[in-house]
Amino acid sequence: MTAPLRVIVWNEHRHEKINPLVASIYPGGIHETIAGALREADFQVGTATLDEPEHGLSQEVLSSTAVLIWWGHMAHHEVSDEVVERVYRRVLDGMGLIVLHSAHFSKIFRRLMGTSCDLKWREAGEKERLWVVEPGHPIAAGLGEYIELQGEEMYGERFDIPTPDTLVFLSWFPGGEVFRSGCCYQRGRGKVFYFRPGHETYPTYHQLQIRQVLVNAVRWAAPVDGPSPVFGNTQPLEPL
Amino acid sequence: MTAPLRVIVWNEHRHEKINPLVASIYPGGIHETIAGALREADFQVGTATLDEPEHGLSQEVLSSTAVLIWWGHMAHHEVSDEVVERVYRRVLDGMGLIVLHSAHFSKIFRRLMGTSCDLKWREAGEKERLWVVEPGHPIAAGLGEYIELQGEEMYGERFDIPTPDTLVFLSWFPGGEVFRSGCCYQRGRGKVFYFRPGHETYPTYHQLQIRQVLVNAVRWAAPVDGPSPVFGNTQPLEPL
Amino acid sequence: MTAPLRVIVWNEHRHEKINPLVASIYPGGIHETIAGALREADFQVGTATLDEPEHGLSQEVLSSTAVLIWWGHMAHHEVSDEVVERVYRRVLDGMGLIVLHSAHFSKIFRRLMGTSCDLKWREAGEKERLWVVEPGHPIAAGLGEYIELQGEEMYGERFDIPTPDTLVFLSWFPGGEVFRSGCCYQRGRGKVFYFRPGHETYPTYHQLQIRQVLVNAVRWAAPVDGPSPVFGNTQPLEPL
Amino acid sequence: MTAPLRVIVWNEHRHEKINPLVASIYPGGIHETIAGALREADFQVGTATLDEPEHGLSQEVLSSTAVLIWWGHMAHHEVSDEVVERVYRRVLDGMGLIVLHSAHFSKIFRRLMGTSCDLKWREAGEKERLWVVEPGHPIAAGLGEYIELQGEEMYGERFDIPTPDTLVFLSWFPGGEVFRSGCCYQRGRGKVFYFRPGHETYPTYHQLQIRQVLVNAVRWAAPVDGPSPVFGNTQPLEPL
Repeated sequence: MTAPLRVIVWNEHRHEKINPLVASIYPGGIHETIAGALREADFQVGTATLDEPEHGLSQEVLSSTAVLIWWGHMAHHEVSDEVVERVYRRVLDGMGLIVLHSAHFSKIFRRLMGTSCDLKWREAGEKERLWVVEPGHPIAAGLGEYIELQGEEMYGERFDIPTPDTLVFLSWFPGGEVFRSGCCYQRGRGKVFYFRPGHETYPTYHQLQIRQVLVNAVRWAAPVDGPSPVFGNTQPLEPL
Repeated sequence: MTAPLRVIVWNEHRHEKINPLVASIYPGGIHETIAGALREADFQVGTATLDEPEHGLSQEVLSSTAVLIWWGHMAHHEVSDEVVERVYRRVLDGMGLIVLHSAHFSKIFRRLMGTSCDLKWREAGEKERLWVVEPGHPIAAGLGEYIELQGEEMYGERFDIPTPDTLVFLSWFPGGEVFRSGCCYQRGRGKVFYFRPGHETYPTYHQLQIRQVLVNAVRWAAPVDGPSPVFGNTQPLEPL
Repeated sequence: MTAPLRVIVWNEHRHEKINPLVASIYPGGIHETIAGALREADFQVGTATLDEPEHGLSQEVLSSTAVLIWWGHMAHHEVSDEVVERVYRRVLDGMGLIVLHSAHFSKIFRRLMGTSCDLKWREAGEKERLWVVEPGHPIAAGLGEYIELQGEEMYGERFDIPTPDTLVFLSWFPGGEVFRSGCCYQRGRGKVFYFRPGHETYPTYHQLQIRQVLVNAVRWAAPVDGPSPVFGNTQPLEPL
Repeated sequence: MTAPLRVIVWNEHRHEKINPLVASIYPGGIHETIAGALREADFQVGTATLDEPEHGLSQEVLSSTAVLIWWGHMAHHEVSDEVVERVYRRVLDGMGLIVLHSAHFSKIFRRLMGTSCDLKWREAGEKERLWVVEPGHPIAAGLGEYIELQGEEMYGERFDIPTPDTLVFLSWFPGGEVFRSGCCYQRGRGKVFYFRPGHETYPTYHQLQIRQVLVNAVRWAAPVDGPSPVFGNTQPLEPL
């Protein structure tokens, strides 16, 4: 019997307060809808939002978190550098991080990627089709050949990211664009997964296959009990 | 409750019959020692050897195998092309494959890699130190910063393989060589892990950390319930 | 002053002989059109076809070839295993190989990839848009953000290949599919580039940007004067 | 006739002023020794150092620089964030960056990697042997199977970097450590190469093969005339 994974769903939680459409789709906030998906799996799930003290991400909370999910859009600049640093260190130390949609521009994702993370976008309620290009990857478990979303914001290439360690999804949009939509990275001892869908004005996180991806991604990103590297000055292991 | 993973340990099983030193180290054969390590974990483990009919790898056996472990050295050429083809197709269809030591020259590994898989070698009972270079990888779970083997055959670079998707271990040898010792690949829907140690005249597979790596590798290589790609002529999903 | 790169354009050259439409688009054969594009750059270009003795690829020819371009479709099975083996060895020894369109199913590409190289396809004269996803790669030199082809055969994912070392192009098709259209691999000392476009019934190889890609790819795939690895039994470099 | 590549060699230039040993090995500073190696090739080479205004890296200088080489050790913290930001933007825009030895801890390298870039080290004048593991890579041109340095500082794994896009060199040290010594990355449109050797108290940059690697790396890292991605809000290319 292993203890359930502790997951925190972090949400900026602003759109829901000012846009009735968003509030109607996500009455408890995007974080609650995502947390609901994860609670249906075998995780121990909490939430945290921007306006809580320390954005709900105290050192104590982070230290006991196995995987952190991050949704942000309009207030990336309001996230304190101190909390970003704290999350950053936890990722390097092994915590998984799942970065959703517009959080491509979050401070933490840009910090971990080392690039601008810029892209093309268009809000036109377009269909999105996410093709599974790596069907043997754990994040593709339980899916069909593609996921179809009836209305989403479009994101298009060039997506200014480092080459993903593994590319799991590729998106097609009717307006003529493509996008690397599911990107896996190792950073330090921690795993990072960027997943494209989830504009606040569409019910994306209610859709079953998207919820399946989130559950799979949490399992994949969970810390591994590997060695803690020792850095710095060291003695020879063999006689010199 | 999920069913235990079905694992087959395949061994050429020739050295044990002709070399008393090898027989004394691996009285039941290398396969039995490896199988013992896996039985201590939660796997359902069988074995197969070269001299059995169809080398013990009938279509029926392979179809129900989640992960196949492969040890071979002096008789690669005796493995029938038909069985190689069968194993190959099962890997592309999702079966995990763990390739050990001198099986770098096995037909199945060369077929899956598309390169010569050649390398430098020396039998001098040298110390080997395997450094974990990716401590957040599942195959590194439970290990320290390195594994030390008191005597092993040396393998040295250039190792003529495709760039690994992930490199987990790097070996150091006192004679001056280094080697990429733990290499992960995705091939079709199946995962392949090459692991360097295990020359037949040393008790490598009795060592605890090596056994831990094998257990970890089986878990990592287990099939994922991802989509079965449909290939061939297809109808448009959108109106042309 | 360095000598010009020697390039051979290999073509199956069958469709041109039996299909008047293909013959009208490529009067001298697909190989001559491609060779013409390369002759405009600073290469020394020859051609070879299936029906020549040894398919035009004697050991002598291959030994002096820096980069080989391969187009095949309806007669992959007629390419002799001996010639495939010869090309394979030259690639591992450093010769560049550029694999075009339907040659995804050629013996040589499947051999080098170690996978089935299967995919989805549809002949419906669809528009293709190839997005440059790695604008800093040499193969993208001189291009815009995408290349547009007014009519092409569609290829769709899942494309059963190993993860490319570098992915340069992603294709969009109006029928709803995406495809990894420009894939770089290192195999041995040789570089391999798979490039999707070029169905025989469309004038793809007459289009300027496509010709630019071919020129860029030849430059990228040219052999590098790196070390020739020594394999086999070796003496220690340090005292044991 | 193409114009020669403009290269700037940046050096902290502090050790040379305070340590007579370093001054005796590098009388004009490490930057002049490296610049000398590059001037023997067909580059147009300048230098810049920490104590110049703007560290010698004005926007004007950077805008006309094709490849920047960076050596720093004891004064990383004195490099202004403004200049780091400027270099960072130029790399994303296509400038090549070659990061040497102790500059693994430079602000610019850590920014581009997104990890701590920490490692093990020991100053004991140990032999270093750099094995070429990717003999077909342009940075290996003209080299033998390995480079041997008679005395160097040791760097050992775990090196906390993202998985390199390509790993060219692996180092062996007699004290028992290994290290990923030549690591290629794409960041934005720019290429980054980390090269391990070059502690200030050893004559490393006078050694011929090391100079060859630097020349090769400059050629590899030179900007490519690929597309400038357009980011932000965009119109559909196809009718919605």
